[in-house]
Amino acid sequence: MWQSSAAAGRLLLCSGRSWLQLRGYSSTVISGKTVEDGVLSSFRSICGEDGVSLGQAVREQHGKDESVHRCCPPDVVVFPRCVEEVSALARVCHSHRLPIIPFGTGTGLEGGVGAVKGGVCFSLRKMDAVLDLHPEDFDVTVEPGVTRKALNAYLRDTGLWFPVDPGADASLCGMAATSASGTNAVRYGTMRENVLNLEVVLADGSVLHTAGKGRRPRFPLRLINLIVKNSRPAFSFRKTAAGYNLTNLLVGSEGTLGIITKTTLRLYGVPEATASAVCSFPSVQAAVDSTVQVLQAGVPIARIEFLDDVMIDACNRFSSLNYPVTPTLFLEFHGSERSLEEQVSTTEEITQSNGGADFQWARDAETRSRLWKARHDAWYASLALRPGCKAYATDVCVPLSRLPQIIVETKEDLIENRLTGPIAGHVGDGNFHCVMVVNPDDPDELHRVHLFTQRLARRALAMDGTCTGEHGVGLGKRSLLCEEMGDPAMRAMQSVKEALDPLNLMNPGKVLQPGGPGDAQQLFLHLD
Amino acid sequence: MWQSSAAAGRLLLCSGRSWLQLRGYSSTVISGKTVEDGVLSSFRSICGEDGVSLGQAVREQHGKDESVHRCCPPDVVVFPRCVEEVSALARVCHSHRLPIIPFGTGTGLEGGVGAVKGGVCFSLRKMDAVLDLHPEDFDVTVEPGVTRKALNAYLRDTGLWFPVDPGADASLCGMAATSASGTNAVRYGTMRENVLNLEVVLADGSVLHTAGKGRRPRFPLRLINLIVKNSRPAFSFRKTAAGYNLTNLLVGSEGTLGIITKTTLRLYGVPEATASAVCSFPSVQAAVDSTVQVLQAGVPIARIEFLDDVMIDACNRFSSLNYPVTPTLFLEFHGSERSLEEQVSTTEEITQSNGGADFQWARDAETRSRLWKARHDAWYASLALRPGCKAYATDVCVPLSRLPQIIVETKEDLIENRLTGPIAGHVGDGNFHCVMVVNPDDPDELHRVHLFTQRLARRALAMDGTCTGEHGVGLGKRSLLCEEMGDPAMRAMQSVKEALDPLNLMNPGKVLQPGGPGDAQQLFLHLD
Repeated sequence: MWQSSAAAGRLLLCSGRSWLQLRGYSSTVISGKTVEDGVLSSFRSICGEDGVSLGQAVREQHGKDESVHRCCPPDVVVFPRCVEEVSALARVCHSHRLPIIPFGTGTGLEGGVGAVKGGVCFSLRKMDAVLDLHPEDFDVTVEPGVTRKALNAYLRDTGLWFPVDPGADASLCGMAATSASGTNAVRYGTMRENVLNLEVVLADGSVLHTAGKGRRPRFPLRLINLIVKNSRPAFSFRKTAAGYNLTNLLVGSEGTLGIITKTTLRLYGVPEATASAVCSFPSVQAAVDSTVQVLQAGVPIARIEFLDDVMIDACNRFSSLNYPVTPTLFLEFHGSERSLEEQVSTTEEITQSNGGADFQWARDAETRSRLWKARHDAWYASLALRPGCKAYATDVCVPLSRLPQIIVETKEDLIENRLTGPIAGHVGDGNFHCVMVVNPDDPDELHRVHLFTQRLARRALAMDGTCTGEHGVGLGKRSLLCEEMGDPAMRAMQSVKEALDPLNLMNPGKVLQPGGPGDAQQLFLHLD
Repeated sequence: MWQSSAAAGRLLLCSGRSWLQLRGYSSTVISGKTVEDGVLSSFRSICGEDGVSLGQAVREQHGKDESVHRCCPPDVVVFPRCVEEVSALARVCHSHRLPIIPFGTGTGLEGGVGAVKGGVCFSLRKMDAVLDLHPEDFDVTVEPGVTRKALNAYLRDTGLWFPVDPGADASLCGMAATSASGTNAVRYGTMRENVLNLEVVLADGSVLHTAGKGRRPRFPLRLINLIVKNSRPAFSFRKTAAGYNLTNLLVGSEGTLGIITKTTLRLYGVPEATASAVCSFPSVQAAVDSTVQVLQAGVPIARIEFLDDVMIDACNRFSSLNYPVTPTLFLEFHGSERSLEEQVSTTEEITQSNGGADFQWARDAETRSRLWKARHDAWYASLALRPGCKAYATDVCVPLSRLPQIIVETKEDLIENRLTGPIAGHVGDGNFHCVMVVNPDDPDELHRVHLFTQRLARRALAMDGTCTGEHGVGLGKRSLLCEEMGDPAMRAMQSVKEALDPLNLMNPGKVLQPGGPGDAQQLFLHLD
């Protein structure tokens, strides 16, 4: 979930001289890069010979995420094994003024991991322990190498699970860093609501806990004896009014304020019962109206995902399904058997009153998993619409009441401008994605996509929405962020950044420092 | 909810010279205070003759909250009528280096409003409009003069309500500033989860919106036509990953980072059905075990309040009730008729298995309101135990699993040290208060109370808890905050403070800058 770049690596790649070299360090050319010997031996003395890599393949692998942003490799990749090593490495970088780029799984979507000013990539995959599971308190602490699927596999026999599910199998600390979200957010919230505490290493190597030091002893798993009937624990499980909320300042900071080395997460009981359904609608308006009404009726729905006709067609082709090619909702309900009945009947009533038809139910795990696999494969299904093309997902989010209007207008815009952009959305949150499938060799199309994404973001802003519901700012949305927040708020963000990272070493060039009006355009001119 | 002080006003009261005078401004003595003429005329030209007060009674009224901290009046009180006036006043203060202390209703509990360095109190009561109600999106924006009861009265005919309920009828912007909470937090969360956006004036007068500028048109009330069957809207209603989370940085900052001039809040549908109950238990352990199990069973309980035997005895006497004098739970359930049945039956099963008896139900509004009035009067009931004494409420919060142990140990500690401290707690959050009723003229008792509160806080910290679940840090808990967070986190908080308020004008002396080891002790030596 940490990411890659467009303005990417110009300093390095264009000048042919590394960040280190530019600062006049004595140096040796290794793997086509110039890196100072003393720095490298310090790194090696901290995390071992095999904990430091200058290999081109390794650097390139760590210079990009899953987005369209061009690869921008760091000068060197280090693989610390514990927080003490992260801290020691950071101190070396700090004293040599080297940029630090944290790297989890590289599954981000806005160019967050690219080494746009060169520097040292901290790959955190060796720190992969699940620590301090407290089943009785519904929380767990994990290191940055633990992904969401690995955590849920670990939790399998406990009756607990962690619901936040971005498409990729991202690392949980990376998800915290990018304020990730997913299909379950409508019921369980995003990372903002589910991170209870963070251990963070700042640019100067100091280590802090954002919500106090964890002091509880770890409970062995065999002590677990929970009565879990429903899936929601208490809301404000770790209530505190103790000073500034550093936890939520770090969540979503995209590696620009510090390196997250531990995350304490809120867990949930596996629901007693689950039911999924697919329902087709005569129009976008009818599908989205149903969503709004289901939520207004207080149904604690777990997932409510919208796919437009273009997307459902793509999914049918890709996953060999035969859903009607009309606007469609994928739904999921969690709860006790009894509460499920009530949720389902209210929802059926509402969807029918909006002309919803073909309500297809899936109660057994296998059918449910086939249904959701089709939804999760939407990205690949979109790409398959135009072989050889690249994809970029927009990410606007608006207040629920404005959702029908913005989706309808956006579809018209796509048609008018002859663009392929199937829509899938976490409509329960007001958040939706147009998966823009674009020919990277067609400058005219790239330009039309660029103008379209700008129009879409501004349409969302005019409706009191945001340019990014869950993908973050990274490189691609820095100028839109300025439009959204305004100068005084941007100045406040900039001064917070300077307060915690006065040398601008932490993932420089991301979130803040907009590249001017050409910024977003670069995104599409740098598809490779 | 902004507050008063102990170290209070030493600069002013001890030296007999005002902050302004110390800075060498030409000045005139007014109301026993020295205030520079030019500054006062600037204030008057901004908010009118009657918008500036130097009267002793007014200043004293604005120098204290509801806590035991001694009154520490500001040099002058201003009453701005709009954000433009707040901004203009702040610019004057900024250019003259005058401290700015925001004031809502003065109902805080940790000394947050005292003018410990003199300066200008911004009383925000004239800004009392409810703005931008969006019933279809379950949100509303309010000015700082709007209290929680005033908002709920305004919402009466809409089918919506705002659930966060600290004891006092606090202003909602003040509640945001102190990260307030209350009896409904176990289901609806605290201010942290319910503030969607803030308009903030910084020390230099600049105005920012923490989550983007509001742009939606206001919907007239007559358009409301909601289907509200249950009380919970979507979880992450205003999802965003757009830059640093300034909203949650400001929530709980206690006026030390900026003045909150508007708050956008998440609203909830009034529940279809509500039921309250009182249940007596043979022991503290049994009552708290029941709480833990009810929550682990996933019952979406709205309120679960614990009162120990001493507190229930106090309430019986004060409110002419006759509940058994044993550890007791006050409960409330919200939901559809059907879901209520399920919640209640699960809860009854659990409480009975723990020896709970005398389950007294209240379905009608009048009986429910009598029941909850007794709970809300717990503070006065405690004071009535020892006429002529003062009260101070502790505020620790621990993970749920540690709650039985800490309450049992705390009760033993109270008995051993011959202290009166009836316990009431939002036990669903792991948060409880000992209402320490203390004779202000007995130095030995004051000393024992001080040592007790320190032990209690440290007991909570050792259990991975916090020294303050909802009252905030203010003046009284600055040194405990340092113990809880550790030096690196405190340095991070300090640098964030310096970034947004480099001249340390915003409510100086609160939250940060601990007064050293004697800090907490002053609290009890300054009862007046």
